[in-house]
Amino acid sequence: MTLKDKIIKKLKAAKEASFKLSNISARDKDRALLAMASALLKNTKYLLSENAKDVALANKTGLSKTLIDRLILTEERIKEMADSLKQVAALEDPVGKILKQWKRPNGLIIKKVSVPIGVIGIIYESRPNVTSDSAGLSLKSGNACVLRGGSEAINSNVAIHKVITECLAEFDIPEAAVVMIDVTDRSAVEFLLKQDSFIDVVIPRGGEGLIRYVAENSLIPVIKHYKGVCHLYVDKDADIGMALDIMLNAKVQRPGVCNAIEKMLVHKDIAREFLPQAARVLDDKGVELRGCSQTLKILKGIKNAADKDWYEEYLDLILAIKVVKSVDEAVGHINKYGSRHSDAIVTDNKSAAQGFLKEVDSACVYHNASTRFTDGYQFGMGAEIGISTDKIHARGPMALEELCIYKYIILGSGQIRP
Amino acid sequence: MTLKDKIIKKLKAAKEASFKLSNISARDKDRALLAMASALLKNTKYLLSENAKDVALANKTGLSKTLIDRLILTEERIKEMADSLKQVAALEDPVGKILKQWKRPNGLIIKKVSVPIGVIGIIYESRPNVTSDSAGLSLKSGNACVLRGGSEAINSNVAIHKVITECLAEFDIPEAAVVMIDVTDRSAVEFLLKQDSFIDVVIPRGGEGLIRYVAENSLIPVIKHYKGVCHLYVDKDADIGMALDIMLNAKVQRPGVCNAIEKMLVHKDIAREFLPQAARVLDDKGVELRGCSQTLKILKGIKNAADKDWYEEYLDLILAIKVVKSVDEAVGHINKYGSRHSDAIVTDNKSAAQGFLKEVDSACVYHNASTRFTDGYQFGMGAEIGISTDKIHARGPMALEELCIYKYIILGSGQIRP
Repeated sequence: MTLKDKIIKKLKAAKEASFKLSNISARDKDRALLAMASALLKNTKYLLSENAKDVALANKTGLSKTLIDRLILTEERIKEMADSLKQVAALEDPVGKILKQWKRPNGLIIKKVSVPIGVIGIIYESRPNVTSDSAGLSLKSGNACVLRGGSEAINSNVAIHKVITECLAEFDIPEAAVVMIDVTDRSAVEFLLKQDSFIDVVIPRGGEGLIRYVAENSLIPVIKHYKGVCHLYVDKDADIGMALDIMLNAKVQRPGVCNAIEKMLVHKDIAREFLPQAARVLDDKGVELRGCSQTLKILKGIKNAADKDWYEEYLDLILAIKVVKSVDEAVGHINKYGSRHSDAIVTDNKSAAQGFLKEVDSACVYHNASTRFTDGYQFGMGAEIGISTDKIHARGPMALEELCIYKYIILGSGQIRP
Repeated sequence: MTLKDKIIKKLKAAKEASFKLSNISARDKDRALLAMASALLKNTKYLLSENAKDVALANKTGLSKTLIDRLILTEERIKEMADSLKQVAALEDPVGKILKQWKRPNGLIIKKVSVPIGVIGIIYESRPNVTSDSAGLSLKSGNACVLRGGSEAINSNVAIHKVITECLAEFDIPEAAVVMIDVTDRSAVEFLLKQDSFIDVVIPRGGEGLIRYVAENSLIPVIKHYKGVCHLYVDKDADIGMALDIMLNAKVQRPGVCNAIEKMLVHKDIAREFLPQAARVLDDKGVELRGCSQTLKILKGIKNAADKDWYEEYLDLILAIKVVKSVDEAVGHINKYGSRHSDAIVTDNKSAAQGFLKEVDSACVYHNASTRFTDGYQFGMGAEIGISTDKIHARGPMALEELCIYKYIILGSGQIRP
């Protein structure tokens, strides 16, 4: 059997499993999720030893410190993976909800009902917890999933997959509900991305490079976000204390994530008062500032921001600052340079806030709050499988509801079309 | 300016127009739609003369009769285009609806609000009415649209586009709300499909060849249906009279459309009684039958159905028939060979119906009604821009609601993430 044949065999099994999964009771799904959580805990030793192989190899091949940190499993992290599965078990079943129902003049009753999407492909890098998180969310939403993690985490991923799928048979759930493509060659990903008769949607999770690769090579619909170039706009009517708090939180609390701010826009009327205070607290936290020409007049000695700075996702303690003349200019800048992820305005002016919230074309727009809240848990969705900056299907944090679609069920009594 | 530069210039204008459009009042959008309808009627003579150029060329180049029929405009058809715009004007505005709203323990208020998608790309063939229909639905839903019709209808499309966009300025709607790419070269389509920074979603409308071309070449998300291989399953507990009526309607009333049935599955216990009657009425209408081995035993002399028959969309007076042992076999067959479009069961048995409706993985599943109802107008949506057999964003008929997405508006009072 060739590699491709092996992959196709797995995909066929996943597709068949998906038909079965859409009919498994919420109770059985939840019991399976809890069993998966227990199995992870019970097999901690095994998981750690398999993970150690990956980490040893990563050290040898000189993987970056950040990536190795993401790769490492600890007892604590395995417990978090198990907790996450338990939390998903406790959430409401998203399948089978009647989203809408109406009757036509000819007597036809049309029901719009939530159903699982089918087979979800997840292409991801380094973090092994994505394996169990994705499996848990897919199972809960009645979807089969096809997992393809990075080669750097192959031993960890295979071990996690083994442990969690061993629990499924007991609940009459096919093992192929969670399929792992353990071929580390990149050509396997390219092949996978053409299998639109087996996989219904692909969600890539990782760096911009991986995501672009997936988007460019996929024949299957992809839901994605390339990057998070998030903005904070400090309006002339901002409460300065609040603006400083939000700025610091959004930039510094965790600078390496997609919902951290990368740019700050400041209204010209407040810039002379606000910027020196902002620079002081940011400097305390080691943030490098880059400014537009107006900013440079106020904050002497900071770096000049080049045009490409406005597009860049630093994922680091760097902030580019621009002075703007109006809310409209701020909105225009965000819609031009931003990544449609998360953007915030701080203001006490209701009409400025309303204009900003309405006109900024981003998945999440904030008034007087930190962009760091763009997250499934923070939104109260209980979990997230990713964040979308696309404009179809889902925007912002994607969780169980976003792993479902609908179908129309039409009930008649012999109606034919005239 | 190169061709590509010209296209990019138009796309930039469309993107900018889309930001403006999302803020135009329902009243102004509706008034513009009515003005567009009047303009079409007033310019009937001009539109007919431009259309005549396309038809003359099509006759010269030997375009098929079916395609020429689709291409031809008449006074009646122009009136229908105008009526369609009036109907869209009368529909409810889909933008700005609060789909959900909740408060987090930290006081954040999260609102999920419907918004236009942005810029919709429509790639289509022959029918010139798609130009005004798509423009109308896009405008009503607050989207800009980029239209690229087939070269065979270029004069008609350009004329319709000219007539309808001339109305926009009066309502302060940018002309680039409706952009026409009048480059007939196919390389223009390929170029267009890479412009994911300007176009948010592409909806192809036409034959399977066009749709596959778009799906394979697009970097922009595509919503599509390749084909409609629709099934009628006649259960052992079917009312035979009803089954015959639905079969005839679904096969014969308009065989060239995607929601007509191409296959009929018949339960073995009713086959001997039902099939001869079915064959008689279908024969009266000139339908060619192709059967499985079991069917051939009952309907002697009809063609044998090859395996490829079960996948094929005939779009013609041909029906393939298979005898099945159970509802489960019918469901399995449909999920394997079908196109996830529309499938129907005729039965008086409630549990058979429930199993079928739940397990058939199609956009629209019918109990005791004809598949021909899969249509925006028939569903009461007032219009449709296409039908989706994809599993994300939208399934089945797509209308105004499906041309919208949502954004999250988060209202705070200084919240930061702990």
